Amino acid sequence: MAGGSGERFWPLSRRDRPKQLLRLTQPDATMLHEAVERIAPVIPAEHIYIVTGTHLVDPIREAQVGVPDANVIAEPHKRNTSGAMAYAVAHLLARYDAPPEGISMAVLTADHTIGEPEMFCATVESALRVAEAEPVLATIGMVPTRSETGYGYIQLAERAEPMPESSEGYPVLPVAAFHEKPNKETAESFVASGDFLWNGGMFFWRLSTFLDELDQARPQLAESTRALAEAMQAGDEAKVDVLFAALDDISIDYALMEHARRVVVARAEFPWDDIGAWPALDRALDHDDAGNVTMGDPVVVDTRNSIVYNAPGAEGMAVGVVGVDDLVVVVTEDAVLVLPKDRAQDVREVVKALKERGDGRM
Amino acid sequence: MAGGSGERFWPLSRRDRPKQLLRLTQPDATMLHEAVERIAPVIPAEHIYIVTGTHLVDPIREAQVGVPDANVIAEPHKRNTSGAMAYAVAHLLARYDAPPEGISMAVLTADHTIGEPEMFCATVESALRVAEAEPVLATIGMVPTRSETGYGYIQLAERAEPMPESSEGYPVLPVAAFHEKPNKETAESFVASGDFLWNGGMFFWRLSTFLDELDQARPQLAESTRALAEAMQAGDEAKVDVLFAALDDISIDYALMEHARRVVVARAEFPWDDIGAWPALDRALDHDDAGNVTMGDPVVVDTRNSIVYNAPGAEGMAVGVVGVDDLVVVVTEDAVLVLPKDRAQDVREVVKALKERGDGRM
Repeated sequence: MAGGSGERFWPLSRRDRPKQLLRLTQPDATMLHEAVERIAPVIPAEHIYIVTGTHLVDPIREAQVGVPDANVIAEPHKRNTSGAMAYAVAHLLARYDAPPEGISMAVLTADHTIGEPEMFCATVESALRVAEAEPVLATIGMVPTRSETGYGYIQLAERAEPMPESSEGYPVLPVAAFHEKPNKETAESFVASGDFLWNGGMFFWRLSTFLDELDQARPQLAESTRALAEAMQAGDEAKVDVLFAALDDISIDYALMEHARRVVVARAEFPWDDIGAWPALDRALDHDDAGNVTMGDPVVVDTRNSIVYNAPGAEGMAVGVVGVDDLVVVVTEDAVLVLPKDRAQDVREVVKALKERGDGRM
Repeated sequence: MAGGSGERFWPLSRRDRPKQLLRLTQPDATMLHEAVERIAPVIPAEHIYIVTGTHLVDPIREAQVGVPDANVIAEPHKRNTSGAMAYAVAHLLARYDAPPEGISMAVLTADHTIGEPEMFCATVESALRVAEAEPVLATIGMVPTRSETGYGYIQLAERAEPMPESSEGYPVLPVAAFHEKPNKETAESFVASGDFLWNGGMFFWRLSTFLDELDQARPQLAESTRALAEAMQAGDEAKVDVLFAALDDISIDYALMEHARRVVVARAEFPWDDIGAWPALDRALDHDDAGNVTMGDPVVVDTRNSIVYNAPGAEGMAVGVVGVDDLVVVVTEDAVLVLPKDRAQDVREVVKALKERGDGRM
């Protein structure tokens, strides 16, 4: 999945250059390229599909992230993660000459940082092995390291025993429930209990399991998915468009995972971060002695716990920051953002204002 | 006088573009151009001389500030305000075919904002009239509006009666003493007393008075000034260089005004500001309802009492500032500065760091 709009990393991200196309934490590879390379030992590039928006197909192909151009596929409209998955499932049904039982699918994200790639691949293999052996929807849950209110949580079943197919890899456990983003108090109780994992938005299933569970949870979406596959196979793009446009704009968690009968989760031990906004660089990059994270070569004087990001490619801009705390300063070739870390989400206000002005730099 | 180094307005100001060459408060005229136009009703352009550093002669000529190119004259070295005045006096002695008694001189600044130009010109005329009639060194003193510690102060003589020559214009009063920049407590007592004016660095004298007083206060500088005039008249640039290089690097206040026998001051009623650093724009430009001063068209959200300066010519930069108070954000085509208003002087730390790096953007 690589459809994000990337407002939260403005001004580095733009409408045509969302987070997954940024070299945010590494100067030499986009996050999407990193994601492709990370999973390559498990899934060869010719079987990796990138599902994105129409306006991002060319930028992604041009970014040469390591998959064949034909595997960059565009949803004709934005219909949230349930739409992206229905589109991908339909595409696989149409393309592969195999019954749904014979095709298994891993849904991965393109805009998270993941450490220890070997451990990541082993975790994916454990989840896939279970999903191929049993009619379950599998996911990966991250052990929470803080009472984060920005993520959904996965609650483990009581007295959960690992699925037998995962005995050799990382434990895959039955899930009791999915919980949407909690408030602070609830998040704290989740983390304290030890029975909750972060929902990282990665999923594993045979297409038949996906469709069977969707038949129960949201029959109309299951029907639309099958109809989309038929229209794709027939090459009827107009019909694909109409069918897809009619889908509800809801998440896969809400459409399927919260209602599915058999959900399992692989407990992740690898470092993971969704890099949701600028302050996340605190966790992804090194600090100086004063707690500052810098990119490029800014002059930073008497400043603490701040992020001063002189973007790669914007070396022509000299940046000087003096005497501030907990501030985010981002400088690109054509834009500057200044806000406190705890207001990082409000970068959207800037993007919104530029959009209203008809300013293209958003 | 237009020699300033302009570090305090980095990144708008640079070594070759100090404050007096900035369009800081008006988009269409440099401060130096404004200064020339302001005094034009009193002193025609062919009698206005701009004393500056060698590296600024071309930039000033190119800026077309309204004086003949030949009147932009360069001190071969930096020797503070006493050097600038000795150089200017020598230049006038060499250029004009008149005795020192026959030449009067007004020393004006190029990097202050001055409102009510007619009142300013009338004040200058009052000071000049007294200085032409009497052997006094005249200056202009601004009525203080705050207990500023960044300016020198001029103390009026007790029971001071205006000089008779100023009966028709603004009152010109005898001075008791010059005081260097005071601490806060002293500044407060100065302002409370009503007997102190700000020293704005403007001076008026006949050249003969200047030389006579200098003979008493600092005879070596008087001698050097006469020798400089002779060397200039002889076209002996090497000698000018040697003589000038030997001058002390001290202010005219310290070299002359504090020791002179007869000093008078015209009390200024016009609005004046030395625009010493970025926060001074608070006093020079209009505010929005939240107390912000903006230049250009930045997006400013939920921000108070801040200066967000998207420099003329840097319209290519989109600027977004969210959720900050009392901050200065300056964006030019090739640089960005972020610091709290109360740290504005520390922009020098940034300039210093760039200089040490050999970075030309300073």
